[in-house]
Amino acid sequence: MSLHSSHPAVVRRNTPPPLIRAFRGERPEVTPVWFMRQAGRSLPEYRELRVGTDMLDACLTPELASEITLQPVRRHGVDAGIFFSDIVIPVRLAGVGVQIVPGRGPVLEHAVRSAADVANLPPLDPAALDPIREAVALTVAQLGDTPLIGFAGAPYTLASYLVEGGPSKEQLITRSMMHSDPDSWAALLTWCAEITGAFLAAQIEAGASAGQLFDSWAGSLSVADYTERVAPYSSLALEPVRALDVPLVHFGVGTGPLLPAMHAVGVDVMGVDWRVPLDDASRRLGGEVPLQGNIDPALLTAPWSVLEPHVRDVLDRGRAAPAHVVNLGHGVPPDTDPTVLTRIVEFVHSYE
Amino acid sequence: MSLHSSHPAVVRRNTPPPLIRAFRGERPEVTPVWFMRQAGRSLPEYRELRVGTDMLDACLTPELASEITLQPVRRHGVDAGIFFSDIVIPVRLAGVGVQIVPGRGPVLEHAVRSAADVANLPPLDPAALDPIREAVALTVAQLGDTPLIGFAGAPYTLASYLVEGGPSKEQLITRSMMHSDPDSWAALLTWCAEITGAFLAAQIEAGASAGQLFDSWAGSLSVADYTERVAPYSSLALEPVRALDVPLVHFGVGTGPLLPAMHAVGVDVMGVDWRVPLDDASRRLGGEVPLQGNIDPALLTAPWSVLEPHVRDVLDRGRAAPAHVVNLGHGVPPDTDPTVLTRIVEFVHSYE
Repeated sequence: MSLHSSHPAVVRRNTPPPLIRAFRGERPEVTPVWFMRQAGRSLPEYRELRVGTDMLDACLTPELASEITLQPVRRHGVDAGIFFSDIVIPVRLAGVGVQIVPGRGPVLEHAVRSAADVANLPPLDPAALDPIREAVALTVAQLGDTPLIGFAGAPYTLASYLVEGGPSKEQLITRSMMHSDPDSWAALLTWCAEITGAFLAAQIEAGASAGQLFDSWAGSLSVADYTERVAPYSSLALEPVRALDVPLVHFGVGTGPLLPAMHAVGVDVMGVDWRVPLDDASRRLGGEVPLQGNIDPALLTAPWSVLEPHVRDVLDRGRAAPAHVVNLGHGVPPDTDPTVLTRIVEFVHSYE
Repeated sequence: MSLHSSHPAVVRRNTPPPLIRAFRGERPEVTPVWFMRQAGRSLPEYRELRVGTDMLDACLTPELASEITLQPVRRHGVDAGIFFSDIVIPVRLAGVGVQIVPGRGPVLEHAVRSAADVANLPPLDPAALDPIREAVALTVAQLGDTPLIGFAGAPYTLASYLVEGGPSKEQLITRSMMHSDPDSWAALLTWCAEITGAFLAAQIEAGASAGQLFDSWAGSLSVADYTERVAPYSSLALEPVRALDVPLVHFGVGTGPLLPAMHAVGVDVMGVDWRVPLDDASRRLGGEVPLQGNIDPALLTAPWSVLEPHVRDVLDRGRAAPAHVVNLGHGVPPDTDPTVLTRIVEFVHSYE
């Protein structure tokens, strides 16, 4: 299948692709669909390509990152590529020791907990982002009319890996630092905002048509902590991309109560996890925000007779929002049968 | 320090202890306080006692379980003991292979996923609960006027361990089964409700003055899934204890959106995690439900100058509810300095 056979509409020049139109609040002919973590372990062609290559090395090898980004677009006919990377890539590019431990996640050489630790964080040399720019340019050249979404972690989630030293259940040390040492917290979150903002801006400048900020762990925060101690830095991270005039999406898990506050950092589209029905999410956002989501990843292993009505329900509730891009309510689980994802794309594209 | 020196009020006969009065919706002279996981790894006397004894074996040795339950009451002067046990104890007592793997949690010998797996789950012989009854009786005898809270896991959380085979981040396999195989789901949740209900009833019949149902993972569910596919079994689990006329508390993590549905299963008190301010939680519950919570466990490592205003804020917001029992918003983290907990108890008891 060619990359765009399913979207004759987008071949017309000057009309933005369906994804971008939906992100802008329009209702294109078909509802666009893509999947968080569509590029990755659920695809045999990805697992084959990754053999013998470390995760962060793969992200920093332009040909590899580009090919991995393209794989799910080719296979599923989704309406967007999402740049294959990792939220700690800008941390690594700034020269901080971090690796991805398989089955565990990002692990730091040294946790960042004291004022001195924070002061020692090195600046990110803009030239260090060259492999990212190169990978994006390679990808965009091959995607044709299919848009590429740029990818970055939000400062809080990034900071939580730095402070905890790795993945954690409830970000206890991070949240303690947030209250106990507000000066170090401000300095750390500012550093995170600067590097992750530069990372996202580099992708957009190199040709990405949209950007998504992932604040995966924001759901561990009260609305007050999020609003007062986190949101300003997410807003700061988006500063360098705002001038680039591409639609921005914001997503976190377990963030139902945070949806309005996460929207207020200055994004166009809110991603919604599987817990909150889209009509409910739209109500919480005043009925004025395009939504992305929110098929329950747990149902990807259910029979089609169970999954189909669920996808239909997601589409129907999505009509409550001004515009809707179908996605999962979280990333594709690694053991997902990829043919199920392809079937969802076909179903969504044929749904009226 | 004797067990009750700090509560002269409760020595008067016929007046229930402050905890029970608060659970019943009254405002006793001092605000009662206890901590989830107060019995356990934060205490050096616990770690000493546990050396060489497996977790579930400790739970099933009456003298040990009783002594561990008493340790934090003696040390901190809290207003309640919480029975030291584990939510998988009734699973083990029914004869299902399960152990607690240190640093990981409950791990099943065989995951329960098919209709046949569920059909093979053995009934729980009431006599198997004798070590629990004995431990509770021993404990209550030593607690005097300090009430003991019985402890049990809710059917959904229990089932998630059985289905996943161990701890999991988002209960994907469990939630898939819930939708894909509703008959097995109903049978499994009914089994879980029966064994966990019998476990809690045994504790109350043996002398516990209240009961708390822990639905730790309910926060991974949408309100619809919780209400339709989980709540009826939590209600069923409480069936045998309802007749015993003790106050019942219900708690889960990340369950802000579920508070009304969790209250509706038929409990007296709602436990609230650290994410939702108590005045907000009380509003969601119509202003009529006694609340328990919700000091942020992350702040237990903060300086007292940061922790104290937080505890004060929790107490002040708790006034929005008809009654308030102070607790953490989740369990005591294992590395907590126990002197901080004692200081919180003293502060809460002296707060006016």
